[in-house]
Amino acid sequence: MVNLADVARQAHVSQMTVSRVINHPNLVSDEVRDLVNQAIKAVGYQPNRIAKALVNQQNYVIQFIVLEDIATVEPNYAILLLEIAEVLNQKGYTLEISTILEPNSHVDGLIVSGWRDSDLERLSAINVPMVLYGQAPTWYDLPYVDVNNRMGTSLATTHLIEAGYKKVIYIGMTMALPFVREREQGYLETMAKHHLVSRTYDVSNHSHDAEKLIQNIIAHLPKNTGIVCATDRIALGVVRALKAQSQIPENYGVVGFDGVFIDQITSPKLTTIKQPFRQLANTLVSNLLNQLHHSELKTELIQPRLVKRDSTRQV
Amino acid sequence: MVNLADVARQAHVSQMTVSRVINHPNLVSDEVRDLVNQAIKAVGYQPNRIAKALVNQQNYVIQFIVLEDIATVEPNYAILLLEIAEVLNQKGYTLEISTILEPNSHVDGLIVSGWRDSDLERLSAINVPMVLYGQAPTWYDLPYVDVNNRMGTSLATTHLIEAGYKKVIYIGMTMALPFVREREQGYLETMAKHHLVSRTYDVSNHSHDAEKLIQNIIAHLPKNTGIVCATDRIALGVVRALKAQSQIPENYGVVGFDGVFIDQITSPKLTTIKQPFRQLANTLVSNLLNQLHHSELKTELIQPRLVKRDSTRQV
Repeated sequence: MVNLADVARQAHVSQMTVSRVINHPNLVSDEVRDLVNQAIKAVGYQPNRIAKALVNQQNYVIQFIVLEDIATVEPNYAILLLEIAEVLNQKGYTLEISTILEPNSHVDGLIVSGWRDSDLERLSAINVPMVLYGQAPTWYDLPYVDVNNRMGTSLATTHLIEAGYKKVIYIGMTMALPFVREREQGYLETMAKHHLVSRTYDVSNHSHDAEKLIQNIIAHLPKNTGIVCATDRIALGVVRALKAQSQIPENYGVVGFDGVFIDQITSPKLTTIKQPFRQLANTLVSNLLNQLHHSELKTELIQPRLVKRDSTRQV
Repeated sequence: MVNLADVARQAHVSQMTVSRVINHPNLVSDEVRDLVNQAIKAVGYQPNRIAKALVNQQNYVIQFIVLEDIATVEPNYAILLLEIAEVLNQKGYTLEISTILEPNSHVDGLIVSGWRDSDLERLSAINVPMVLYGQAPTWYDLPYVDVNNRMGTSLATTHLIEAGYKKVIYIGMTMALPFVREREQGYLETMAKHHLVSRTYDVSNHSHDAEKLIQNIIAHLPKNTGIVCATDRIALGVVRALKAQSQIPENYGVVGFDGVFIDQITSPKLTTIKQPFRQLANTLVSNLLNQLHHSELKTELIQPRLVKRDSTRQV
């Protein structure tokens, strides 16, 4: 059994330093932390969770609750989940997964995803440190972490305008969720800023619906139109409808949103707004751990980035 | 705080019966179990895990280890993970997720996915009840649960033959993994059984590679050919290459494999071999729990089913 002493020997530091890195990483320099963490890895040391819990009165367990219906789950979750697991594992925490809103009594904190507005009342009543994945109404005072959805569609809209598409339309979703409103808002604001006329359509978040919409409106859609899509899934249907006439990116430009999996399987490859899942995972975890240490409530929006591919003109 | 007595009152049974349902569900009738479980749900009772652990010397924690690179993770995992979480939650177990092969000392058992042959040596050395997701070489004596891959491609091949496609080819994957070999084998065996000439191609598991392959061989591909694809992702590329000429399903029939997410977003909709993830989750969990109770090693292959859609002729 590898112990603290082995790590200390490997890192050429005292056992107390190793203990400090494990239990109070914020109190040591980056240099020492890296050195000790490398040694921990090298000798294969596993901090004893129960011993840690006794020292810190923590269990080192974070629960991730997915309230979304499994049937509707998108690949986004797999990525976010595994990123969170990796971040927590590195910090000596364990990640538990649950599909029901009943936090186990031994968890130190919750990350809640796939919630609806109707869940927020119940969530605010739970007396455990918590961070939501996804932008929540501010009156609940629940800290959340999300991608900056408004900035994302703003980047998409600006890109299409700069690429010279004369008209720019938006295809959004028929769902009354904050991120849906935010994504639409980012388009509307950017159009207004450029003194351009907005035009929005709504579909369900299915590629076949988006495909049908384009087939229905294509006769009234002038050439040289840019299409901002609320999701890659919608963009996939749009691309499919337009590709039959090989009109991408010359006559029509298409930008999606999410940048997970679907953007890899469209043809032509999709220009999209990429959600930074690694950064989202890091921020969700550090937000929660901050709460554990200082009871700090903080809400953060992470900047997405535009990935230019073949569904829009090069600028 | 809701307790055992509340559940007993709600179910009109004794507290001992409730305790038996929670701790030894196998010893009570289905009827009593359902009754008590409904009462547990109705009053919102949470069995005290620590109390349970003391009685049974179990921690009621199962760890799911994903050894696959996060970047290559497919939507399949999100589904399987959440299904397993749900099954375990219902049984009073907690699911932990980890991306590294270091089982926590407090877990009762491991479900390991995304492993490679080179991991099996290390896995066999771990002295914790374990079940692998994915067919493993039998000489390691590690129990696994998988979909019956061979049966899947056999169903696909038979369907194309019965739909009257004269020639049936197979597009497999350039990966030396058991499930890859099994899927190819299912095609080869079925062709031999029907005294038909086999023809296999290999691509990487990316739709763009499959698309390119079809574009390269289409000149030599006679009309009335059926194409068995090792994955939906490959099938997606095949469909895209063939759709340009609107030749599906009249001249070419295409069958995929997996039935998660991608099959929903292709056009035309994909005939595919659907992996029964709910059943896989249930079997992985019950296999592991059987080991906990009787040290039984058991390997199971779950039957997939053919879902007929628009990429093959109706028979």
